[in-house]
Amino acid sequence: MKEKVILAYSGGLDTTAIIPWLKENFNYDVVCVCIDCGQEEELDGLEERAKSCGAEKLYILDVIDEFCDEYIVPCVQAHAVYENKYLLGTSMARPLIAKKLVEIARKEGATAICHGATGKGNDQIRFELGIKALAPDLKIIAAWRNEKWTMDSRESEIEYCKAHGINLPFSADSSYSRDRNIWHISHEGLELEDPANEPNYDHLLVLGVTPEKAPDEGEYVSLSFEKGVPVAINGEKKKVSDIIRDLNKLGGKHGIGIVDIVENRVVGMKSRGVYETPGGTILYEAHQQLEELILDRDAYAVKKDMGNKFAQIVYEGKWFSPLREAVQAFVESTQKYVTGEVKFKLYKGNIIKAGTTSPYSLYNESIASFTTGDLYDHHDAEGFINLFGLSTKVRAMKMQERGEL
Amino acid sequence: MKEKVILAYSGGLDTTAIIPWLKENFNYDVVCVCIDCGQEEELDGLEERAKSCGAEKLYILDVIDEFCDEYIVPCVQAHAVYENKYLLGTSMARPLIAKKLVEIARKEGATAICHGATGKGNDQIRFELGIKALAPDLKIIAAWRNEKWTMDSRESEIEYCKAHGINLPFSADSSYSRDRNIWHISHEGLELEDPANEPNYDHLLVLGVTPEKAPDEGEYVSLSFEKGVPVAINGEKKKVSDIIRDLNKLGGKHGIGIVDIVENRVVGMKSRGVYETPGGTILYEAHQQLEELILDRDAYAVKKDMGNKFAQIVYEGKWFSPLREAVQAFVESTQKYVTGEVKFKLYKGNIIKAGTTSPYSLYNESIASFTTGDLYDHHDAEGFINLFGLSTKVRAMKMQERGEL
Amino acid sequence: MKEKVILAYSGGLDTTAIIPWLKENFNYDVVCVCIDCGQEEELDGLEERAKSCGAEKLYILDVIDEFCDEYIVPCVQAHAVYENKYLLGTSMARPLIAKKLVEIARKEGATAICHGATGKGNDQIRFELGIKALAPDLKIIAAWRNEKWTMDSRESEIEYCKAHGINLPFSADSSYSRDRNIWHISHEGLELEDPANEPNYDHLLVLGVTPEKAPDEGEYVSLSFEKGVPVAINGEKKKVSDIIRDLNKLGGKHGIGIVDIVENRVVGMKSRGVYETPGGTILYEAHQQLEELILDRDAYAVKKDMGNKFAQIVYEGKWFSPLREAVQAFVESTQKYVTGEVKFKLYKGNIIKAGTTSPYSLYNESIASFTTGDLYDHHDAEGFINLFGLSTKVRAMKMQERGEL
Amino acid sequence: MKEKVILAYSGGLDTTAIIPWLKENFNYDVVCVCIDCGQEEELDGLEERAKSCGAEKLYILDVIDEFCDEYIVPCVQAHAVYENKYLLGTSMARPLIAKKLVEIARKEGATAICHGATGKGNDQIRFELGIKALAPDLKIIAAWRNEKWTMDSRESEIEYCKAHGINLPFSADSSYSRDRNIWHISHEGLELEDPANEPNYDHLLVLGVTPEKAPDEGEYVSLSFEKGVPVAINGEKKKVSDIIRDLNKLGGKHGIGIVDIVENRVVGMKSRGVYETPGGTILYEAHQQLEELILDRDAYAVKKDMGNKFAQIVYEGKWFSPLREAVQAFVESTQKYVTGEVKFKLYKGNIIKAGTTSPYSLYNESIASFTTGDLYDHHDAEGFINLFGLSTKVRAMKMQERGEL
Repeated sequence: MKEKVILAYSGGLDTTAIIPWLKENFNYDVVCVCIDCGQEEELDGLEERAKSCGAEKLYILDVIDEFCDEYIVPCVQAHAVYENKYLLGTSMARPLIAKKLVEIARKEGATAICHGATGKGNDQIRFELGIKALAPDLKIIAAWRNEKWTMDSRESEIEYCKAHGINLPFSADSSYSRDRNIWHISHEGLELEDPANEPNYDHLLVLGVTPEKAPDEGEYVSLSFEKGVPVAINGEKKKVSDIIRDLNKLGGKHGIGIVDIVENRVVGMKSRGVYETPGGTILYEAHQQLEELILDRDAYAVKKDMGNKFAQIVYEGKWFSPLREAVQAFVESTQKYVTGEVKFKLYKGNIIKAGTTSPYSLYNESIASFTTGDLYDHHDAEGFINLFGLSTKVRAMKMQERGEL
Repeated sequence: MKEKVILAYSGGLDTTAIIPWLKENFNYDVVCVCIDCGQEEELDGLEERAKSCGAEKLYILDVIDEFCDEYIVPCVQAHAVYENKYLLGTSMARPLIAKKLVEIARKEGATAICHGATGKGNDQIRFELGIKALAPDLKIIAAWRNEKWTMDSRESEIEYCKAHGINLPFSADSSYSRDRNIWHISHEGLELEDPANEPNYDHLLVLGVTPEKAPDEGEYVSLSFEKGVPVAINGEKKKVSDIIRDLNKLGGKHGIGIVDIVENRVVGMKSRGVYETPGGTILYEAHQQLEELILDRDAYAVKKDMGNKFAQIVYEGKWFSPLREAVQAFVESTQKYVTGEVKFKLYKGNIIKAGTTSPYSLYNESIASFTTGDLYDHHDAEGFINLFGLSTKVRAMKMQERGEL
Repeated sequence: MKEKVILAYSGGLDTTAIIPWLKENFNYDVVCVCIDCGQEEELDGLEERAKSCGAEKLYILDVIDEFCDEYIVPCVQAHAVYENKYLLGTSMARPLIAKKLVEIARKEGATAICHGATGKGNDQIRFELGIKALAPDLKIIAAWRNEKWTMDSRESEIEYCKAHGINLPFSADSSYSRDRNIWHISHEGLELEDPANEPNYDHLLVLGVTPEKAPDEGEYVSLSFEKGVPVAINGEKKKVSDIIRDLNKLGGKHGIGIVDIVENRVVGMKSRGVYETPGGTILYEAHQQLEELILDRDAYAVKKDMGNKFAQIVYEGKWFSPLREAVQAFVESTQKYVTGEVKFKLYKGNIIKAGTTSPYSLYNESIASFTTGDLYDHHDAEGFINLFGLSTKVRAMKMQERGEL
Repeated sequence: MKEKVILAYSGGLDTTAIIPWLKENFNYDVVCVCIDCGQEEELDGLEERAKSCGAEKLYILDVIDEFCDEYIVPCVQAHAVYENKYLLGTSMARPLIAKKLVEIARKEGATAICHGATGKGNDQIRFELGIKALAPDLKIIAAWRNEKWTMDSRESEIEYCKAHGINLPFSADSSYSRDRNIWHISHEGLELEDPANEPNYDHLLVLGVTPEKAPDEGEYVSLSFEKGVPVAINGEKKKVSDIIRDLNKLGGKHGIGIVDIVENRVVGMKSRGVYETPGGTILYEAHQQLEELILDRDAYAVKKDMGNKFAQIVYEGKWFSPLREAVQAFVESTQKYVTGEVKFKLYKGNIIKAGTTSPYSLYNESIASFTTGDLYDHHDAEGFINLFGLSTKVRAMKMQERGEL
């Protein structure tokens, strides 16, 4: 009996060509798995396509809600941003895909998992670290890095497919290299390969428009959170995935969440990309807007560092690691009172705050106001400053005494 | 002979009332000092005003270039942002003012320095820590916290002035509480005191307009940096202060740099304010855009933490401290190769990247591109991932062996 | 009916003198509370003493196990060390004392809590922040800082007691200022006040001897941990407090855990003290010895930073804060697999490792050994280094190309 | 004309076997370079040996002072410790060796550099990253990882040597794997390969004795520092290398600086080793003892984090990186006032503090003492605590109001 391999399958040219390649070179039975994280691709007919290309079977798994609840929400709560700008859309999805591939591998009794990620990118790391963490016994085949892989262009893949009886209408033209899910879409390649170039946004954008093309009228929105989880939009209770869908429409319409970045990949190179994260950008901003009312100064500062750490971990593909769990435990602990409502106005790329309320707000008008209330005695500041500045003064006295000030 | 006190003087009601108060209660000769950090206030006639109110003398010091070169530039290089949003406009200026007050105190042989900062704010800390650090022997008088200070409203201050022969046309109406310099203007008070309220931007803004009121046409700008210092705008060499002035006009016109924040003060309370930093926001963004090309991954990550630390130190008024010097030394070291040009388009609140170049760019198109060049061998990724994920795999094997995976 | 005050009472001169002082100056009924954290003081007769001095009532609460399980263990797990040396013995106990004072205050319907901590130290902060966090409505009376407090020496306190009918055999001689509980004892004062002086250890030490006076024979001990909690000593299951008691005896006997430090207090001054933490030092070292086998590199590094943060929080008296809870959640998450046994030899101040084992050890002899096993392929290192050093090489090439290398 | 390769040569079996191997497999002229970092090996006759084995030339470079001044001192100042215990002895030396290899390569016009570090260790990374950083054009040959390398035991190396006419009296027995320089010696292998084993110290130790075998009499020593650099021992001015030599003798004699650790290598595995760093351990402790007097609380805390970061960078072989330079700039800035004298007693593994003095000490006895001096007003603590605990109290009031406290 042949061994089985699980192939992360999208239906595109790259992963399609892998099917005959796996059979020819490894003599595997190929089980294709298409994980739906919200990429909005045509899934109808995918099963026939996979089978017609030689796959034994195709699984299609809709994991959108699991993706939103278990992967996106922790990142929102951590305010995890990689290198100041990237909201981790692709990074978040990869471990979940790895997990599902492993689950199917176990179910099918497969001995290997194959993916089609490039040898220059971060995704190979994320897939493979996920698999190593969950199924260290499974063999991993990275088709593009494999010595038996000989194709180096779309043309050669198409030719290879044809030679193996696969005649699908794939185009040989390459466009941007993209990755999409419910949270974001990324774009790389073409004019973006030179950071000196302005992106060709009209050609590029998928989820929304540029600020210039956004409506001339702003639009108010409100979001409600409970313990750091988004629970309602404009007062209407919805599950997280539906809130993100609504925010994507709103954000895309109003030109929000377009990021042009040169980032440092884990494999040591800089790459340049454009990300569209319309709903996600709003969600991050809204969550932070609420936290401003609730976290104290110390907690805010340490949480910021931990959020950066969380972003690094997720970016590096170390989702299934004790460290990610520990940082998430930290973050979850801070969310206990992140409950309340935030309002803002979307207008041509801007998210403009329009009021925030929370039952756990530490903002106290009587303290903050210029007129003194009961809780704050101006004279306390005298003592505070004297001790806050004590070491400063002692040092200065010492330096003065030595004639060095 | 009477002792002398140096008074940080603005010409406004608060600091004017302090002149007779200091004379009456402490029997000082009062030397007023007005430090011009770019607040764009009317300084003509200020000398007569101060003297007519009982001051012995008035110094007016234009410190704008020192402010830009020695205080603002280090913050830009550090990308110092307090609590994700505040570009530290007021925080940066206070230590310089303290330094100048001390210099005048030494020149005049004064024994005390007096300021009119409120007992609830951060500025009292920044002034006083600056003075303690530079002149620990000088007495500090914080008028508003002083037990001899009896005025608690503008009305009572006006009355006190009149009773002491000062009849100036001060208005008893209070507006927003503001602080302005060449870098920014801050607004507090009125409707802002409740975070649930949307700011009344039409009433509030001073340096620019809202995105809605900004022109319908975007505008391209380029900035050049040498070793992390801005040196030219649109190809024209200018000193830093003039670049900031130009950027303020551009940013203000295009609705850029308006921030609405609830922040944590050093004295333990939350306060809500709106900041306008039109030029500064552009400068920060441009500098970061350039650093993306130049800093490697490790340096980028640690510099981010150090920038947060720098922001905290400056916010807390600890400018004249060994720690600020050390963090600045770190940051300056990273700026050695931050040389290049950045282009962007300003449009209705957005700073849209439009291309970046640097002779020290680490971006390498042949490495980043999908087609393999000499420098990067896909197969290296295999080894990299195996070792990068080694502990992950070892742990998983151990857990599997124990039946806990 | 009189209002009641809860007094943190030790039976010593300071807190004894506070009883009549509270009655005289505030007209309170005084309820004394003595919290036993393991200070090993004579508690017999304490009730009569308190009452004879005018107290209405005395509570004695043995909280040793709660102290060990809820306060010490988290610090051990965090490896929380303040300024590289201080194992936080006093800092850990203060919040628990504050919590118990509040509980008694609620039970008694008291309106105030009084403590006798000095106005220069950290303990006043720890007590008061604890009370503020748990009972913000209660009035706090810090006797020594109170303007009605007039005594400034032991003599004057003794005199005050006598004048109020209290004739107890207190000595007017001052010794070291000490704080003791089951975890440690601290010493300040006398010759320690000058950091140039060597401590007079023969006079000073309470819990053990110097290394010089320790036995010439070393002694082997083993400790077992489950999920980061010490559960057995030399194979014998014991509760944490009993393990600490055993370790204190062993550590004291072998001259372990004596620390001489100049530390930075929260109130801005440096102070010099000697700490004895015989059992605690062993426990920290043992726990770390075990973690070496279990935590991966990333987790180890971040946990180290979090441990430092935990130490700062606890030192600053912010035990009852969201940040402490969050950091503890992080730490607890890392302890899931910190299970195993450590052996070491105690000898004249040294804790010498003598072997460590854990079912969750990530140490893998076949990988670590020089002879290659299955899991590690030498050639992987080639790819790893190429990518690990890619940005280094790209930078160097760029510099070389510019003639700057 | 043949191309030249530079071989990092020690005279031992491994690097000796590489000479004929390089000639045979790559047809290189082999230039051997022996960098003396204080390994105290027999260097007499090394030239003849190298030549008799086929090398064209041998360079012997004494870099001990450069090692001490430029590599060790920055680590001491940073208090750089890897994973709480390892004083980086090998890590510090590797970049300097790489630098010298590159210098000789340039002088000789060589096109490649060869080293004999194992494919499992950190040293291959440190050598290669150093070479990449300084000479990205040079080819790197890692003999042990090279596919043409066929020897896998000492026996096979000896045989290979014999087959190539080299008959040197190398022993086939393997002992511990060791690396030595003026700062330390490391030991791996044999019984250490199982962390459950106690090290066989009698067999193992080279630089000193165990505490048990150390003298029964302690010994006082004093060290003087200027701006963080050790300048004198027992009052006698000496260069750093001589101070380290003296301290090595003293430390070795008194059983100091023996560390038994399971550490996480960069390549992802745990390894177990014993380090002897007798002088270095004293130097680190002494430097820290001095800093306690001089650094303020904030600076101390951030420097601690930066020291950890420095240790990671050095451990990872990233010495020649912008980040190392930046962190070092931070550290150097903090050393400006680290001037003074520290005394301690060495006794059976213990470094016991015996007094510290500095002209820049921030310790102020009149402030620290229990009796109030001018500089510290007890009542300031009231205000300090009220503001330090303000957010704590506000939160508690809010929770109380909601019935959640």
